[in-house]
Parts: sequence; structure tokens; C-alpha cells
Amino acid sequence: MEFEVRTRARRQFVDITPQVIEKVQASGVRSGLCVVYVRHTTAGVTVNENADPTVASDILRRLEALAPDDAGYAHLEGNSPAHIMATLVGSSATIPVVDGRLALGRWQGVFLTEFDGPRTRKVSVTVVGT
Amino acid sequence: MEFEVRTRARRQFVDITPQVIEKVQASGVRSGLCVVYVRHTTAGVTVNENADPTVASDILRRLEALAPDDAGYAHLEGNSPAHIMATLVGSSATIPVVDGRLALGRWQGVFLTEFDGPRTRKVSVTVVGT
Amino acid sequence: MEFEVRTRARRQFVDITPQVIEKVQASGVRSGLCVVYVRHTTAGVTVNENADPTVASDILRRLEALAPDDAGYAHLEGNSPAHIMATLVGSSATIPVVDGRLALGRWQGVFLTEFDGPRTRKVSVTVVGT
Repeated sequence: MEFEVRTRARRQFVDITPQVIEKVQASGVRSGLCVVYVRHTTAGVTVNENADPTVASDILRRLEALAPDDAGYAHLEGNSPAHIMATLVGSSATIPVVDGRLALGRWQGVFLTEFDGPRTRKVSVTVVGT
Repeated sequence: MEFEVRTRARRQFVDITPQVIEKVQASGVRSGLCVVYVRHTTAGVTVNENADPTVASDILRRLEALAPDDAGYAHLEGNSPAHIMATLVGSSATIPVVDGRLALGRWQGVFLTEFDGPRTRKVSVTVVGT
Repeated sequence: MEFEVRTRARRQFVDITPQVIEKVQASGVRSGLCVVYVRHTTAGVTVNENADPTVASDILRRLEALAPDDAGYAHLEGNSPAHIMATLVGSSATIPVVDGRLALGRWQGVFLTEFDGPRTRKVSVTVVGT
């Protein structure tokens, strides 16, 4: 199952929790695993707090400090920081499915992490189990 | 399946390998995957060496250098470094199950990584396969 | 299923996409998940661009900046940077299997990330689904 996300900035955390929950419900799986995966090399997926938006912005600002724009990269497209952030954050998140529900913790949400936008991104959701 | 871990410090790597092995054995799965997941946004899960404890402490010290306490964060709770470390480390680890056993390498262990303790943390273990 | 990779340098990204694709095809799984896992604590697995090799080298150079050799580590074997990079990158990658194929994006490849070579590394591929 796949859905699209239109990002609005060069770098942005987009809360995709509602779309992921919908796909888990549509799968009919009661017990198993949900994997959220981006088919891109300059974006990622992470699970973190989605209550206070300053959490996501603090994470993003820190990733920008860890992979700054001016570090003398060899790749000529100018988006090496985005590739580095993608590897640091990861291209997928795996979350348990319990009693037919995405078993996120109380404060957890699932984010598409855009590092080289704005773009239309494809997010894949795979649910395995019984 | 779930178990609790009581952490003892603000930041700490807790070796949870024995508990994870026990859950894999209890599942009866012979071949598949084990996912260890924390339902928290200021803790993570990682696989790394559990023979010499200085490995875990070196990783933790480096994470503290990468997400320092005084980087001018917007989030007012003061635990932005913990959220950043959670995204860098990840909220889950996925490990193969082979012949009914957790197929860790010889030097590998599974760690709950506490970044904002001490607290009681919930760890979820999901085993899928046949 | 497992295969070996002989790395050729202290630090190196090795594109293992062909071997992973082969294991997915051998599994006969049409729909599900593929997990690529390294049973080592000084190497990792990541998904990123495998078209232009400067992407991998820029990521590797940045990881070396984030976990420098001379940061005063306690672990006496001298390979703490490699353990730190393993936790930052992760010891596994999870990729959907759709219509019997590894559902990588157009620019994505799977890399074994060697941080303490050269060595012979074991890579495990697990495919679950139907």
C-alpha cells in the first residue's frame, strides 16, 4: 500500500500518523508488524513526539548542524546533507500491530522527514502478521 | 509481548538481551523476525557490543556531543537532546530468528537506550514468522 | 539466508543490492518484508543512492567527522568510532517486497557499511510474507 505526501519546504517533518493508521486498519492484520518506508534517498522516516511541534523542529535544526551545507562535499548535486540525514534517520520505521491497532506509545507519531524538498514523496506501508 | 525496564540514570544503555531471548523462545517461532520496540520518544533501541561496557559508554558520550544540552532548543521541556538521540538511534531494532533462536552475532547484544531517565520504560517484543 | 562480503578498506560502503535481490527471488515470497542484517558491531546496513559513488563517500566522510578517531574514548581497542557509526547507521535495513520483487526506489541501493575493515563480513537476509 502506498500514499503520496506533498512537502512544502526544503526540510520538514510531516506527521503521517493518520495515513499509516488507516493503512493498518485496511490491512485487517490483528497482530504483527507495520513498516513505513520511503522510496527516496533524500528523505527518511522516524518515530518521535508529535504533540509539541518544537520537538520536530529541534531535531531538524540539529540534523542541519550535524550535516551542514558547507562541509566540502564531493557530490555535485548539492544535496549531500540530505543523503547524510537520510542515512542517520533511516528510510523506514517498524512499529508493532497489536489487537488490530498501530501500537504507538502515547506521545509517538510517525514522521516523513523531508530533507530536499519541496517534492511529492511516496510512502509505502507494509503490514505483515495474522 | 511486553516487559518493563527500570532505568537508573539520566542516560544509560541497559542490556536487555536476556529478556528479548526469553520472548523469542516463548513465541515458538522457528524462522522469522524479532522486533524490539520502545513506546517512548526519549529512549531508543540499538544493537551493539555488550562484552566490554566501555563500548556503550563511548557511544553514549558521543551522542551527548552530537546533541549537547546547550544548543538553544525551542522545546521548553529541556529534553530536546533526548528526542534527537531517539531519532538518531531509532525506536526499534529488527533481528532475525533462525532455528528458533535470536540470531545475534557473537559480540552483539540488544540495548534499551535511556536518554531522559531515570524512568520505568516499556519494551515491546514482536516475533513474526513460522 | 546468508552471504559473505570481503571489504577492502578500513571504511567502505559496499553495494550489496544484487545479492539481496537474489535472496528475495530465491525466497519465493511475493508480498512482505526483506530484512538485511549484519551480525557485527563495527559495521552497519543502510539504504541510499547507489548511482553516483560520491554520495556514499560524502556520507562516510561525514560519519568520520561525527565520530572522530581522537575523541578520547574509554574502549581500549581503538575502534569506538566504528561502534558509534554502527549505532548511528543501524545494523539492519527493512525493505518491502512487492510482487515478488525488492521494492527499492529508483535511486536506492542497499549498502553494507564497513567501519573497521578490511574484513570478511556476514550479511543475513530474512524474507517474511506470503
